[in-house]
Amino acid sequence: MSGNADLRKKAVGEKAVEYVKDGMVLGLGSGSTVYWMLKKLGERVNEGLTIKGVPSSLRTEGWANEFGVPLVTLSEARRLDLAIDGADEVDPDFNLTKGGGGSLLREKLVNNAANRLIIVVDESKLVQRLGAFPLPVEIVPFGWENTAAKIAKLQCLPKLRKKDNEIFVTNNGNYIVDCEFSEITDPVGLHQSLKMILGVVETGLFIDMADLVLVGEEDGVRVLEKEGKSE
Amino acid sequence: MSGNADLRKKAVGEKAVEYVKDGMVLGLGSGSTVYWMLKKLGERVNEGLTIKGVPSSLRTEGWANEFGVPLVTLSEARRLDLAIDGADEVDPDFNLTKGGGGSLLREKLVNNAANRLIIVVDESKLVQRLGAFPLPVEIVPFGWENTAAKIAKLQCLPKLRKKDNEIFVTNNGNYIVDCEFSEITDPVGLHQSLKMILGVVETGLFIDMADLVLVGEEDGVRVLEKEGKSE
Repeated sequence: MSGNADLRKKAVGEKAVEYVKDGMVLGLGSGSTVYWMLKKLGERVNEGLTIKGVPSSLRTEGWANEFGVPLVTLSEARRLDLAIDGADEVDPDFNLTKGGGGSLLREKLVNNAANRLIIVVDESKLVQRLGAFPLPVEIVPFGWENTAAKIAKLQCLPKLRKKDNEIFVTNNGNYIVDCEFSEITDPVGLHQSLKMILGVVETGLFIDMADLVLVGEEDGVRVLEKEGKSE
Repeated sequence: MSGNADLRKKAVGEKAVEYVKDGMVLGLGSGSTVYWMLKKLGERVNEGLTIKGVPSSLRTEGWANEFGVPLVTLSEARRLDLAIDGADEVDPDFNLTKGGGGSLLREKLVNNAANRLIIVVDESKLVQRLGAFPLPVEIVPFGWENTAAKIAKLQCLPKLRKKDNEIFVTNNGNYIVDCEFSEITDPVGLHQSLKMILGVVETGLFIDMADLVLVGEEDGVRVLEKEGKSE
């Protein structure tokens, strides 16, 4: 990653903290931009801001502890005021692909519990159409080959994710297949088709969840609002 | 369970073994009727029958080992010739509810991989309409309360399954909610609605999977074939 990209991630992560109000219960997403958000959030907490956060991955939990951001579990909080998360791709309708980091299921459960979702990305993540980034799909380990074969029938190449030559296992004890679709013309229909497959736990398609997208650009942070949604 | 019910389960379990041919790879279901099937199958193996079985639960794996039934994993076998399994309810269209024993996901993955599925039950399991037995739904533990709340919106009472005062955890590390629907008028639609819910891994509705139902009755075993399907 270039130093410039890092600076853009820092700027957009810090910008997101401006949307945090005292007393909020927050969903804390995952990824490198969220890191900068958490660092800034920790500073605000040190200055007296009272918030609680629900982490969406073990790495986020570690960062939150490091920066002094108080945590609760999703089971304790149930409903969240605001979630802030990254994304691998964002299309013009604010549909997202996520899961490059492997925590898509918890991220989706946390974001879905929030009244509002802010996505923080750098401009390289904005796409006209989803699918250049392989779509992560979380599947059950038991007989995973049959599940992958069913996914392949949706015209893609599913590849079992590995890490250090071992099969990658999610926080929930499942596997991930990264699915090369080249382009996704119907995100809603594809999510439904995938989710209905026996053995599929969840997909990395986040449909109709994001309310606001903050984009780190060369000369600052651009705020994108969804058409038809008002602040 | 009465002695008579035991005898009926034994009769129907043993009857199922008549459908097993030399060289087959079998799906081995779960439950008390499958116990008798496995016992008989072990005897046939001792007499020289060559088969392999894929167990759908840890208990079935234990019984198979006890009776000398050779095992392979679903990942090794991939496709199965025949699966034999129990059910909690069977309706006239051969739709099933399963999962009282807690192994619904593996059972479904095993049965789905088989070219043919034989269901073994005693006559008390035959119903005009599914739903008197609470429907088991396997869900992700993380934030399970929110998932259960979404399930409840489908007009049911989801109850987290416990065992010995601890939350019951499936072979796949998930939870089960048993859902009181009182009656299920649209099994296909209900399965789809449940499976699409974020956090739901699988449902205990087995739609369009069974080919043959063997029913243990007072005076023997009745063989039910699906209308429109021929032997």
